[in-house]
Formats: sequence, structure tokens, C-alpha cells
Amino acid sequence: MLDICLSGTGGTLPQTDRWLTSLMVRCNGHAALIDCGEGTQIALQKAGQNLSPIDIILITHIHADHISGLPGLLLTMGKMGRTEPVSIIGPVGTEHIVNSLRCIAPFLTFELTVRELEAEETLLSFQNCELKAFAVEHDLPCLGYSFSLPRAGKFDAARAKELGVPMPLWKRLQKGETIEQDGRTYTPDMVMGAPRRGLKVTYCTDSRPLPSIAAAAAGSDLFICEGMYGDDEKLDKAVQNKHMLFSEAAQMAAQAGGVKELWLTHYSPSMPNPEDYLDVARAIFPNTHTPKDGWSKTLVFDEA
Amino acid sequence: MLDICLSGTGGTLPQTDRWLTSLMVRCNGHAALIDCGEGTQIALQKAGQNLSPIDIILITHIHADHISGLPGLLLTMGKMGRTEPVSIIGPVGTEHIVNSLRCIAPFLTFELTVRELEAEETLLSFQNCELKAFAVEHDLPCLGYSFSLPRAGKFDAARAKELGVPMPLWKRLQKGETIEQDGRTYTPDMVMGAPRRGLKVTYCTDSRPLPSIAAAAAGSDLFICEGMYGDDEKLDKAVQNKHMLFSEAAQMAAQAGGVKELWLTHYSPSMPNPEDYLDVARAIFPNTHTPKDGWSKTLVFDEA
Repeated sequence: MLDICLSGTGGTLPQTDRWLTSLMVRCNGHAALIDCGEGTQIALQKAGQNLSPIDIILITHIHADHISGLPGLLLTMGKMGRTEPVSIIGPVGTEHIVNSLRCIAPFLTFELTVRELEAEETLLSFQNCELKAFAVEHDLPCLGYSFSLPRAGKFDAARAKELGVPMPLWKRLQKGETIEQDGRTYTPDMVMGAPRRGLKVTYCTDSRPLPSIAAAAAGSDLFICEGMYGDDEKLDKAVQNKHMLFSEAAQMAAQAGGVKELWLTHYSPSMPNPEDYLDVARAIFPNTHTPKDGWSKTLVFDEA
Repeated sequence: MLDICLSGTGGTLPQTDRWLTSLMVRCNGHAALIDCGEGTQIALQKAGQNLSPIDIILITHIHADHISGLPGLLLTMGKMGRTEPVSIIGPVGTEHIVNSLRCIAPFLTFELTVRELEAEETLLSFQNCELKAFAVEHDLPCLGYSFSLPRAGKFDAARAKELGVPMPLWKRLQKGETIEQDGRTYTPDMVMGAPRRGLKVTYCTDSRPLPSIAAAAAGSDLFICEGMYGDDEKLDKAVQNKHMLFSEAAQMAAQAGGVKELWLTHYSPSMPNPEDYLDVARAIFPNTHTPKDGWSKTLVFDEA
């Protein structure tokens, strides 16, 4: 199960009726936060999100609207009594910015580490998830992130019997152990069917569309992608500012293959009603939505 | 006329129902902002305050809850097309913090200057106001500020005639000019009565009570003072954290002499209903109030 909360949907600057874009991904009682602009700590709490489980903070890039709320969030986490370490992950340049912003948060009650990712694509992990960071195209180093929660195959008693696996070992093998006994090696695949479809969430903001973003989003239950401008006539502006139109985000969702649902975000302050342009995106990718601040969704495994 | 807006009333950290303490003082179409914690730019806009007229930003001290919103505010002022310079004034240490926080606001469309005040008391000006910065007692350098808008005396035609001031000069003298004519010097006091009572606003946050704060607040139409804790039983905590009780703020207002009205602010997050303790303060200084975010007041000269 993955719990998703898009606490804000704005780009560029915080507004009275729209928080800056930030995403909380919760798994196994732990949370990863993507981006932290001014006010994100308030937006998360307004959306009913507890700050305590945040173990990692993923920064897409070091523009103010994605990181200006970081010192305040860290201080608040400290005031809430946190002692467990927090790790910040971001593109090249993140460490300098984090250290500079910490001029107003020099003393924390917990250890803070910063890791900069230099490769085009980096595999990490978060709880049971495979976490992939991938480079996108903005006017400075910028990363997208995808969380993939794998799902084991079904227990297959017939197969276990057929391969002569002793019944007392079944449970341990099912949990993933490999067991040596009486000179024979028993592996989990001997009692399990093929892995089933897991869950996947992909997040991308502040980029021009790229085939590599579509590739990263392939098979996502939920693809959260920036849609800075709804109106196709703003293409020049999108190109100039290295952002996307709704229609470009929808095209990537359609091209990716296997994307179930698209949420647009990071709306321009010049666009008070993103839903006015929803039809443009839905003509390309029908299951597109224009979330409001605080939209949440719980992703659960398929029934089968 | 002085327009006052207390856009936030919280201390320590921003809450879902309370912005961090910040005060806007407007005079002659220009504005001075005191303190800028995370979210202040949003709080000001929620309170109907235009950001364009802000010419000076006065920082009381460099704790995060008083300065973390600065880079975001500056960026937003730039995005609104500002080209006029902005000056930041604060205690020793302010320049380093402003420069560090500007790692996410390196390019502004306007000139930004920072002036650190080293003296216990510094006289400045803002529009027609005398602006006084005075040292208070926190765990690092911290300043209070008072704005005094003077008011000239009434025009006194009888006096002008008696002193033989030629009538064609009256208007210019009334406006403050000194005029040499026919070998004689004419000064404004020759056509004016004694200066009348002006307007005064004093702001103090993050301090233990001091006689010098009461002295600075003397004669204020409005004294805005921190009241971190309402409950007198929190005296030890107030002493330890260098903050004030409601009762201590009220005592200063009473001791100052000539204070017309006291607004408490910078409430602890542990105090959801400051009005619960209003009676404690009113027993000492009757015209005390516990403002909510966005309280505004227009101070006008006495009728006489």
C-alpha cells in the first residue's frame, strides 16, 4: 500500500489559495517528502499529514519554490522531538543550498545528511520500494522520482510439493529466506508463483517533456506531472521557462504505456482555474485530473 | 495617518490557523514591514496588504520565525515587477543571514541593501516618521522599533500678524520653509502654534521586559508587544526562553505612561486561545487586546 498526498499544487510562488507543490509518499508507516517550498510544513498539516514519519526529503531542484520551506520544516520536526536521522537527496548543488539555508536552523535535534545525485539515473530505496531518481530538463539540474513497490507471487503449494520442499520450511521460504537443509538448497521461488503487479508512483516537475520521463513513468498507477500552463497557446512560454503544457504532460502519460492516472500540478499563478483546461489534457489522456491542494489517494495492490 | 496591519500573531513556528508574527506599517503610500517568517508573504496578502509599497524591512532578530520568509518575499516582489530599491535593517548578524538565505534568491530585479544597527538605540526615518530602533533582551541581538509621526501646530494668523509676517509668505512658512526677504528671516514657528500630539506605534517581540522598552513605548497610540505565555505560572519558561508573560507586557504598557492601547502577539503554539488569559492582562492594563491574524487599525490625529 502506498499513501499519496499532494499537499500543494502551485508553482513559482505561494498564493493565498494555493500552496507550493509538494508530495508526501507514505509506506510502512514511514514517509518520503518530495520538495519543500515556503509553507509546505503548514500545507502538510492542513492536509492531515503527520510530519514525524518523514525520513527522507527528495529535492527535485534548488529553485526557491521547491526548497525555501526546508529550514522551517526541519526546525519544526526538531521541536516535535525528532531524534531519528533525516536524509536529504537532490541533484548536484543541493548540499550548498541546504547548508546555506541552515544558517537559520543550525542546531537540530537529529542527524541530517545530504546526498547529491550526479548520474542521469540513480537507484535508491525507500522502505520496501525501489526508488528511482531520473534527470529531467530544466534550466538547472533537476530530478524526477519514481517509487515502485514490488509484489511477490502467490504461494504455490502444488509447486512446493512437486519440488519436494519439506512443509515446515514453506513459511520461511514464503517470507523470502533461502534455506540449506540436508545438503539441499531451498529458495523462495520454489514455493511461489511469478511476481505479481506491484504499485508505482512517478513524480516529475519543472521540465520540458522528454522520452526518458515517459519511460520512467511507464506502468505507473499514478503519474504526477507538472502542468504549468493549460492553454496550448502558451507553448513559447513553456519552452522558454522549461515547463510543460497540460497537453504535453498528457502526451507523456499516453506515450509512457501502462499509466493508470495522471495528476497535473505546479500550476502557474496566472492560471486560477486549472480545470478550465482539463478537456485539453483529457482529449489526449482521458484519466487526467487537476488536483487541488491536499488531494490524497491510497494505492492498493490489484485484487488478483 | 498610520495604517497598521498585524498579519500574523504566532511565535516559534507557523501553524495551520496562525501565521508567524509580522507587522506592516503604512504611511504616505509607503510601507515598512517588521519581520518576515515563513508564510508572511501569504499572510500579508490574506490580510489584504499589497506588497508593492514595502520599501524597508525591519528585522527584530535572526531567529527563523522572524526571517525565514525573506527570500520568498523578495522573489515575489521581484516577480511583481519591482525596480525600486529595498532596504533591510536589523541587528548585528543580519547581513550574513540575508546573504545566506539569498542562495535561493540570488537575482533580484531591484537593489537590496542591508544595514546592521550596533548601537543600543538608533534613530532612523521612514517617510515623515521618526523611526527608532532600540535593543531588547533575547538570547541573541534583538531590536524593537517605534514609529513616531509628528504633527505640526495649528496655523496662527494672529501671531503671524503680530510678528509682521507678510501674508504672501504664510502658506510657504506653514509648509515648513524658512524664507529670507528684504533682509529679514521668516521661520515656520512665526505662523504656527506649538506642535500638536502626533501618532506613535511601538513594536517589541522576543524579549524579557525591560524599563527601556517601557520608555520606548511611552506615549504610543498602539503598543504591540509579545505575549508568548498567558498563564503566569509559565514565568520560569518565559525567563528561560527570554520571552514575556501577558502580565509582564501589560505591566510595561502601564509603566510606560501615555500608552493608549496594547496588542499582544507572538503567542506560543501551546496556547490555542490567547483570549483565555486576556483578563490577566486587562487587570493590569485595561485596554489590552489579543489580536487574531490580520488585525488592522488606522491611527489618525486627534481632532483638536
